Amino acid sequence: MENPPNRERWRSRITDDLWGSVIPFWMEHSLDREHGGYFNQLDRDGSVFGDDKHVWLQGREVWMLSKLFLDRGDERHLDAARLGAEFLARHAVGPDGRAYFQLRRDGSPVKLQRKIFSECFLVMAYAEYARASGDGAFRTRALELFDRVLSLVDDPSPLGRPVLAGQRPARDLAVPMILLNLVAELRGEPGTATFDDRDDYDAIERRCVAEVLLHYDRGRGLVREQVGLDGTPLDCPEGRLLNPGHVIEAGWFMAEHAARVGDAQLEADAFAMMEGALDAGWDAQHGGLFYFLDAEGFSPTQLEWSLKLWWPHCEAMIGTLIAWRRTGEARWWQRFEQVAEWALDRFPDPEHGEWFGYLSREGEVSQRFKAGPYKGCFHVPRALWMCERLLAE
Amino acid sequence: MENPPNRERWRSRITDDLWGSVIPFWMEHSLDREHGGYFNQLDRDGSVFGDDKHVWLQGREVWMLSKLFLDRGDERHLDAARLGAEFLARHAVGPDGRAYFQLRRDGSPVKLQRKIFSECFLVMAYAEYARASGDGAFRTRALELFDRVLSLVDDPSPLGRPVLAGQRPARDLAVPMILLNLVAELRGEPGTATFDDRDDYDAIERRCVAEVLLHYDRGRGLVREQVGLDGTPLDCPEGRLLNPGHVIEAGWFMAEHAARVGDAQLEADAFAMMEGALDAGWDAQHGGLFYFLDAEGFSPTQLEWSLKLWWPHCEAMIGTLIAWRRTGEARWWQRFEQVAEWALDRFPDPEHGEWFGYLSREGEVSQRFKAGPYKGCFHVPRALWMCERLLAE
Repeated sequence: MENPPNRERWRSRITDDLWGSVIPFWMEHSLDREHGGYFNQLDRDGSVFGDDKHVWLQGREVWMLSKLFLDRGDERHLDAARLGAEFLARHAVGPDGRAYFQLRRDGSPVKLQRKIFSECFLVMAYAEYARASGDGAFRTRALELFDRVLSLVDDPSPLGRPVLAGQRPARDLAVPMILLNLVAELRGEPGTATFDDRDDYDAIERRCVAEVLLHYDRGRGLVREQVGLDGTPLDCPEGRLLNPGHVIEAGWFMAEHAARVGDAQLEADAFAMMEGALDAGWDAQHGGLFYFLDAEGFSPTQLEWSLKLWWPHCEAMIGTLIAWRRTGEARWWQRFEQVAEWALDRFPDPEHGEWFGYLSREGEVSQRFKAGPYKGCFHVPRALWMCERLLAE
Repeated sequence: MENPPNRERWRSRITDDLWGSVIPFWMEHSLDREHGGYFNQLDRDGSVFGDDKHVWLQGREVWMLSKLFLDRGDERHLDAARLGAEFLARHAVGPDGRAYFQLRRDGSPVKLQRKIFSECFLVMAYAEYARASGDGAFRTRALELFDRVLSLVDDPSPLGRPVLAGQRPARDLAVPMILLNLVAELRGEPGTATFDDRDDYDAIERRCVAEVLLHYDRGRGLVREQVGLDGTPLDCPEGRLLNPGHVIEAGWFMAEHAARVGDAQLEADAFAMMEGALDAGWDAQHGGLFYFLDAEGFSPTQLEWSLKLWWPHCEAMIGTLIAWRRTGEARWWQRFEQVAEWALDRFPDPEHGEWFGYLSREGEVSQRFKAGPYKGCFHVPRALWMCERLLAE
């Protein structure tokens, strides 16, 4: 593998952003020392513009800070992870076993979604925090919640969504994709002291991979968010929806799994899925990745379809670098540079730290806040941290 | 009242758009002669890009077509209204009495919202269709559903939304506003043969007006979408949310009610609410009305906040003309011209008819479809039809 001339320049730019701008932003502004947990509605300068706490983001910040502690051994990160982990252990799950979506600052519940993702992000948080802290109670919490997630996937009736006669039997990409990621998170890194395993992980992974592949239309080179039970495309806007960032994220989850089990064909499929999403998702006019597209070229019904969101660009930086490291192909390096250049020129805020989350199609800041109901201490630091490692090794 | 020089020019431009472009689009493309009801996912050229049917829009089209028939006596409009009214009577309400949100082409149910608006738009549809067709069964349906709506407002537990300890006791502007409009629709036009009345209408209207006014912050000149039970502002993003188009719509509902009952103070309040929303909502840089704003100037968390949607401009055209007719003040005429000029220069599609629904902040077409899950045969023809009358009289 040829060493690209800019490799060190990119590594140092990413390191500077991660440790000089992103992590300091969260450590300085997000920790709620009074009630525990994190402020996750932060204006451009880090001031709190809403003090409700969103469980997805609380869990993801616990995961990220635990990860940083395991990597660097800085006790401040473990201490900050504990602040969130203990808050969530006290408040995130209701008496019926369902995890809430939104809490007040003091932890009292505000919103419950009819979805499994709050539970999923708690599994990630608790597994990584258990590893970081050595507190076995969090490992037990993670495994119990993971079993709960598996049971809700097989029988979603406790979610309370109405079952109606006209609904098209369908499957969502998000479900096998997040389960594949959760198994990887529960296992931890192979070869380390904290590697964990369970009899059913391999079987769950095989099932997830098979299900993700049902969404992949090889002929068209695209991955639909929703398909019929056997993978048949659904002829409706919901069935034509494309989410390039989501496909790239699913792609690198699958590529990492394929590398671990040594499945070269699956790894090639994962990279092909990512490449198709980068081809279809890149805005030829203004650059950057669209949020949503329609597989047949209709206007997506999602009003925000043309916005450039931070996280698809984070996922694309990770995915292209993984593909470059595994294949050594120059085109993956070029893809990485294309995405990273566009993203790092526009999303980071040199004045107050962290990244803006939402740009207009033209690349102008559309929302000035750094943290909101769906943006927290997760995609940016995860991407920068992973890219730093992928560029350094 | 001085007659503004451009009055006839505006009237003729609006008449041309309504009868030459808008109504022909719906009559040509939306009628589903095979299954009944209307196609309400129509691409730029009127082709169907999704054949599910959204009950809000089905009901609103029945209302609009019935209104046109009552005004003009064209049997084609009554026939088209019947197509929707009978489809809805067969399919819109489930065995538990709740109205669905989304149906398949054949009427089988796909989605149920935990909100009362499907029911509300059925009340409008059935009341107006009963008046147009003389079919008393639809009047009975309208009144029964209206009672159902009132009962869900007082006890929302059948909607199935979870009640959680951290929820802030709050009221939504949408509820009193839509009820005020429903009473006006059920009554019909005073002095006509089809004017209908019920003992409790006056009391409901008084309650609605009092509730709308709880959202009105006179000191700041703004109307919050959500406030505490006694009108106190809530210090959270949900409590700071402004929706200028919604306030203008509520304003003209209230102005019409105030004119009918002869309450000059209330009428002045209604106009002041509208004026505040026009001041706050107008984009000084690119023109047009923002979709959402935050009362304290934070970025709204709604990703689509800066889009220019067709319907706030429709409501603003109606509202400014009502205020101009009632007050005779030149500034209301100027406001009308400002909004109408911006809107009519950008939203209508001279090639295929009707209006685009969603423009970027800069005023470029963001979504090319003419009908989607929230845009149908309603806001545009209602506004043009009302403006035509307000300009002509």
